Amino acid sequence: MKWIAFLPVAVAAVSGVAAFTVHASGYAEKKAAPVFGVTIPLGYRDWRLISVAHEAGNLNDLRAIVGNDSAIAAYREGQFPFPDGTIIARLAWSYVPSEENNKVFGRPQSFVAGPATEWALQFMVKDSKRYASTGGWGYAQFNKDGIPADEAVHKTCFPCHEAVRTRDFVFTRYAP
Amino acid sequence: MKWIAFLPVAVAAVSGVAAFTVHASGYAEKKAAPVFGVTIPLGYRDWRLISVAHEAGNLNDLRAIVGNDSAIAAYREGQFPFPDGTIIARLAWSYVPSEENNKVFGRPQSFVAGPATEWALQFMVKDSKRYASTGGWGYAQFNKDGIPADEAVHKTCFPCHEAVRTRDFVFTRYAP
Repeated sequence: MKWIAFLPVAVAAVSGVAAFTVHASGYAEKKAAPVFGVTIPLGYRDWRLISVAHEAGNLNDLRAIVGNDSAIAAYREGQFPFPDGTIIARLAWSYVPSEENNKVFGRPQSFVAGPATEWALQFMVKDSKRYASTGGWGYAQFNKDGIPADEAVHKTCFPCHEAVRTRDFVFTRYAP
Repeated sequence: MKWIAFLPVAVAAVSGVAAFTVHASGYAEKKAAPVFGVTIPLGYRDWRLISVAHEAGNLNDLRAIVGNDSAIAAYREGQFPFPDGTIIARLAWSYVPSEENNKVFGRPQSFVAGPATEWALQFMVKDSKRYASTGGWGYAQFNKDGIPADEAVHKTCFPCHEAVRTRDFVFTRYAP
């Protein structure tokens, strides 16, 4: 009856948003994040790059912002607001000096992605009906093992993204 | 006779490595880089992410390292050395403080990708026969308009990458 075990994956592949993930670190069942009910999208690590950033301070990370096909198409074609079905992901790794690179450059200048940060994963999911009260976006944060942050954390997402309401609540610009 | 104009693109799509590119900034004809004869690969901006980094100092960039399917498969499956056909690309943007993000965070901590840097594009192309004398890799650097760097610059690539000979001359590790 092996097909039963694979059924959720098949359903997830069709829906595009999964209760399970293929993340290389192999964590299995995923819980939906509170407030918005967002789960980790299947295959997000294969998505195309939107941009990169460095957050210093307490976060101290290097991050990649990637998007599903809908996100990439919308950015490139200037489709605004983003269409329903758009998902934008933020992946974060610790900001680590590279001794190996610095030796080659001859000075301490190189910082690379180390292990995933504690809160490695964030997602924005566009569904203008379901998330009408939060600008059409659902928000989710998961730790590096795929466990969602609590309700209090998720209630801080939208107030923060309101700062960029004129850009459909999305901070990141496309890197050419 | 419009088909003539599109012929090089069609040939490039089949060969996978192009004398022309689909880069959004729209630059047209590409010259092969000196020494190794590498041209800008078609569709590199759609490749999947290997990792991200920040080079401070004179470079002062945020960079994404992306790879073609062969590169991504090799990284994930631990295939070593990288197989012929692997291409790894380094895309660099200027390292710019984000006033917009800093306002939201309440302190100056956010750095994002600005315009492409002067030497925005680098590629490593694996061909163990053609590039036998340089570890099996051909190297190329192009500016943001797709113009290759000169011969002197290209002669510095391999000596630098020799520092990581034990990792098949590739500096970047895969970010999980």
